[in-house]
Amino acid sequence: AIDGQRLWSSLMAMAEIGATPNGGSNRLALTQEDAAGRHLLIEWCEEIGCQVRVDGVGNLFIRRPGKRNDLKPVATGSHLDTQPKGGRFDGVLGVLAGLEVLRTLHDHNVVTERPLELIVWTNEEGSRFAPAMVASGTYAGVFAVEETLARQDANGVTFGQALEETGFKGNLPIGEPQLASFFELHIEQGPVLEEEELAIGIVTGVQGMRWFDLTIQGSAAHAGTTPMSYRHDALAAAARLIDRLYTHAAYDTSGDTKVTFGCLEIDTPSRNVIPAKVSLTVDLRHVVEAQLDTLEERLHSELADITNTFGVAVDLERTWASPVVEFDKQCVAALEKAAKCQDIPYRRMMSGAGHDAVYVSRVAPTAMLFIPCRDGISHNEAEYSTPEHCALGAQTLCDALIANANS
Amino acid sequence: AIDGQRLWSSLMAMAEIGATPNGGSNRLALTQEDAAGRHLLIEWCEEIGCQVRVDGVGNLFIRRPGKRNDLKPVATGSHLDTQPKGGRFDGVLGVLAGLEVLRTLHDHNVVTERPLELIVWTNEEGSRFAPAMVASGTYAGVFAVEETLARQDANGVTFGQALEETGFKGNLPIGEPQLASFFELHIEQGPVLEEEELAIGIVTGVQGMRWFDLTIQGSAAHAGTTPMSYRHDALAAAARLIDRLYTHAAYDTSGDTKVTFGCLEIDTPSRNVIPAKVSLTVDLRHVVEAQLDTLEERLHSELADITNTFGVAVDLERTWASPVVEFDKQCVAALEKAAKCQDIPYRRMMSGAGHDAVYVSRVAPTAMLFIPCRDGISHNEAEYSTPEHCALGAQTLCDALIANANS
Ligand SMILES: NC(=O)NCCC(=O)O
Ligand SMILES: NC(=O)NCCC(=O)O
Repeated sequence: AIDGQRLWSSLMAMAEIGATPNGGSNRLALTQEDAAGRHLLIEWCEEIGCQVRVDGVGNLFIRRPGKRNDLKPVATGSHLDTQPKGGRFDGVLGVLAGLEVLRTLHDHNVVTERPLELIVWTNEEGSRFAPAMVASGTYAGVFAVEETLARQDANGVTFGQALEETGFKGNLPIGEPQLASFFELHIEQGPVLEEEELAIGIVTGVQGMRWFDLTIQGSAAHAGTTPMSYRHDALAAAARLIDRLYTHAAYDTSGDTKVTFGCLEIDTPSRNVIPAKVSLTVDLRHVVEAQLDTLEERLHSELADITNTFGVAVDLERTWASPVVEFDKQCVAALEKAAKCQDIPYRRMMSGAGHDAVYVSRVAPTAMLFIPCRDGISHNEAEYSTPEHCALGAQTLCDALIANANS
Repeated sequence: AIDGQRLWSSLMAMAEIGATPNGGSNRLALTQEDAAGRHLLIEWCEEIGCQVRVDGVGNLFIRRPGKRNDLKPVATGSHLDTQPKGGRFDGVLGVLAGLEVLRTLHDHNVVTERPLELIVWTNEEGSRFAPAMVASGTYAGVFAVEETLARQDANGVTFGQALEETGFKGNLPIGEPQLASFFELHIEQGPVLEEEELAIGIVTGVQGMRWFDLTIQGSAAHAGTTPMSYRHDALAAAARLIDRLYTHAAYDTSGDTKVTFGCLEIDTPSRNVIPAKVSLTVDLRHVVEAQLDTLEERLHSELADITNTFGVAVDLERTWASPVVEFDKQCVAALEKAAKCQDIPYRRMMSGAGHDAVYVSRVAPTAMLFIPCRDGISHNEAEYSTPEHCALGAQTLCDALIANANS
């Protein structure tokens, strides 16, 4: 049995690195804080005799040998990077629960048939470098390495430069090692499990998501002298678009349509100048791919509408599309069995968030499990899961990993 | 007669200081660029024997003595500061037309009865330090000196610090000298004169304007996992407000209602995080004070509405209210007479923009005149007025100044 108290202490120790004023963490990908978090983990893993390898996009592969090291490893893991005002569990739980499994095996001197691999994927959040899950996507061959290394943050620093600066550009070839299977534990980041008073969610797939960069170009003019009918107000046009799409999504009572504008910036803002140019980001999600297509069409038609109404020009670039994913049936069943064996109340569900498991599932049998988080809140300093739920999740993960590594 | 060619050369020389890529100027108040513009003007004025004095908020008073220097001066002027991407005429024309009048008198060795005073008011635009016209307002006793010196720009630099850094903290007591009258020439910054093919607008007053700082507080949550019905999206709430007020203003076919949101900023933006906090500015204007009250009430009711609909908290602070102004009838008549004598087609009109004349009118008989600007565009690098219109405006100003200084 895993040690829930030790897991909790590790979570709280990791949260100290980049701690924010309101109880969250700020470890944006490949910053000094992210590097410090990785070094702490590496120290913990080396204490129990594991070996750390780093690939060309900074993914960490931490191996606990098995009896048959010629076989592919059974893997688990998640990410240590956070949102700029992120929580203490998103990603971190999946990594430290994996560590807890390795520590438990170490304590009891258990050696599995297959080796075990604990993985830390780089830049999962997509907040510093877009898109999200870019390094697991590179591992899985979805993104070319050179393309990933050239991606820039808001200050123009490339992913490659940030890797060099933090010392996490490794030489393990991209795509290695191949995995027998991959299991990722994560907090749900949504309200369902808490509402239904379930301790575990067995994740059967992940909804589709699309990211866009949008620029609206109007023209600058004087706020006091320009009649409304003469204006080409880029912000008013953006506001119309946001309100229309938000309302459209809100009217879908199934709750499956999701629309978010996370960033919006006015070029050269001034109180008494009609905004000439606005840049914003769009995040569209749906569990059904065809519905996501319809939602994207809606975005286009609303853009055509504001172009006409406000006399502005729009430039829309789709920067990321992650299709709806269905996880491996056997991996799902393995997790379900582990939950059942412990008599933990669970349900099957889709994930609303993207996870590294999305891309890993393209190259290895994959599934995920969720635990509840308070009020369904994530990407927020207030994010919280109980020690009990963390321990239950880690135990379920542990049981599934051992079963898979010995079969 | 004034020298239109010389006036145009001066305008173009001033525009070189802080020149922007697309043909405008960037001389935000009390920056090094603004200081350089002032030094150029001072050099020009000293060449023709004028004396420069500076008051405690950086206003420049440039005197050409008359025969009766015991009498109050007849004054003209405007401002040299610009928007961050401003034009070459807004403010600058009023200052350099005043210079052209002084140069013309100098050329012809004419000495007026009363002294003449050319004034450069500090921080008219309100873009670096809010509100607009803050230094003419201080001169007129509307704002306390200490309050003005303590006002901060977006980086927390105070007006007082910026004065010291640029060397424009003078020792002329605030409120001195008192003026016999004040005439300000400006570009219209709106489309009326151009549309009606008139060369001069005689400005009888200025519309009322109110500025607000608004914060909308929602809560951060995950863009992928949070159902629309669970969200407290501060940006979506702001968008609803902007769209509603914009639409309300646009429906007023008189064109008298004006609503502008010039600045909007998301706190800690991230693509896949629902915006928790948005700060924005609101600029409301109307030619009728009671209608401005109604518009402000509408702002409050829309805020109440988004508070309910989005479950956000709002914090609205009115930072500035400049009531509707009516200029001095005799000064208006003096300008009208000058236009008539030259057979210049003109009309009477209200100003949509605030001007230093607004505050000066509280302590001295005041009026303004406008010339057309291309497409009514201002607060834009593309702002333009023809050399002919600039010269006509300067000539009308010159005639009115001389008539007043000799009466
Ligand atoms: N788990 C998580 O928050 N991933 C970030 C990618 C996303 O936006 O879904
Ligand atoms: N003239 C001018 O642009 N003044 C700035 C103050 C205002 O916003 O009206």
